[in-house]
Amino acid sequence: MSRDPVTIVTYDWVPEFPRGYVRDMRPRWTAEEAGIPYKIETVPLNDKTPGHLAIQPFHQVPILKDGDLTLFESGAMALHLADGQPELMPEDRTGRARVNQWVIAALNSVELPVMAWIIAAAFDKDDRAAANANDRLQPRLAQLADVLDGKDWLLGDRFSVADIIMVEVLRPAADEGALADHPVLLDYIARAKARPAFQRAHADQMAHWQAAEAERTNA
Amino acid sequence: MSRDPVTIVTYDWVPEFPRGYVRDMRPRWTAEEAGIPYKIETVPLNDKTPGHLAIQPFHQVPILKDGDLTLFESGAMALHLADGQPELMPEDRTGRARVNQWVIAALNSVELPVMAWIIAAAFDKDDRAAANANDRLQPRLAQLADVLDGKDWLLGDRFSVADIIMVEVLRPAADEGALADHPVLLDYIARAKARPAFQRAHADQMAHWQAAEAERTNA
Repeated sequence: MSRDPVTIVTYDWVPEFPRGYVRDMRPRWTAEEAGIPYKIETVPLNDKTPGHLAIQPFHQVPILKDGDLTLFESGAMALHLADGQPELMPEDRTGRARVNQWVIAALNSVELPVMAWIIAAAFDKDDRAAANANDRLQPRLAQLADVLDGKDWLLGDRFSVADIIMVEVLRPAADEGALADHPVLLDYIARAKARPAFQRAHADQMAHWQAAEAERTNA
Repeated sequence: MSRDPVTIVTYDWVPEFPRGYVRDMRPRWTAEEAGIPYKIETVPLNDKTPGHLAIQPFHQVPILKDGDLTLFESGAMALHLADGQPELMPEDRTGRARVNQWVIAALNSVELPVMAWIIAAAFDKDDRAAANANDRLQPRLAQLADVLDGKDWLLGDRFSVADIIMVEVLRPAADEGALADHPVLLDYIARAKARPAFQRAHADQMAHWQAAEAERTNA
């Protein structure tokens, strides 16, 4: 705990819909699991600045600052914070490769069909595209449920940073009802949400948006 | 070079459309750059087996076998093969974090809109979904072109495994015409394709499909 705090950068305010899901959840939760102290800074959601673009080329959040290192991509932040933390990342080469595999599986093989469905159904409100996307998403969720059947976590008994990323990828789809046919995945998410580190990260993110809303209302 | 060969598993045959793009390109190219010997094994495309599912829960290829370790997710394979290879992966913690960042950026922030467009345009042939997907893809490509403007590689002068993944994510979209407004990205892909390791990997993949086609025709 003598480590210098890292800084997680998120937005100054977001509308109600994404609250509790904004991807600063991923480094927040990882830092909470690892006992790494962190502070929060913000960038404006509605007035995107060249300074923001200079540290996040896609003009998104979160951003992680750790000494001289500035990182984007929440998955890379989670891997960086987990590096050297055996409770989140095995120390042997084989174990690290397996965690990388599941982090990338979450961010590519799972998040790609999840986001395709969310974009078609919730953003574009395009019924045909949403139906096509759901036809791709459901078999992928069934395959993932087969992996997790009878296991607590992706590596088996051992929680890892891969579970943080996978749960954060699945959680929005679960809360929109897309996981209803996959009780194994709903149980997995519930197990993760019961962890004190998740609860602290989530409560702190919600408190951040509530403070932002109060400031905006009073301004 | 006294390293035991690794095994890359791909399909026994694919139709003409994906030839040259099948994701075994990623570990093939990485192994070629690193001088790691590899051999090829196959699983059937059209008769998916429980044995395949046991090592690739999403029933896809490629799969990497390295001694006792079996890995899926081509990005994780590339990171594993690059581990301990300073010409592909910096040895310091900061450099590793930056490479992880760009590997994940390729597989998530870039491949997600690329695949959404390819799926809508080429697979679903859904004009409305394709137009929506292209409206999301083009700004992302412009942002990536800004990053690469004046640089040879994502890390600057230094090639890394992140360039292998980024180029392989972009290449199908480039060949379908989606990168026409982004000459910086087309130059970046051309630079990568001029590397002898890319050329060996690509020629070997094409030879594999040609042999498979010949065997099928003669069967």
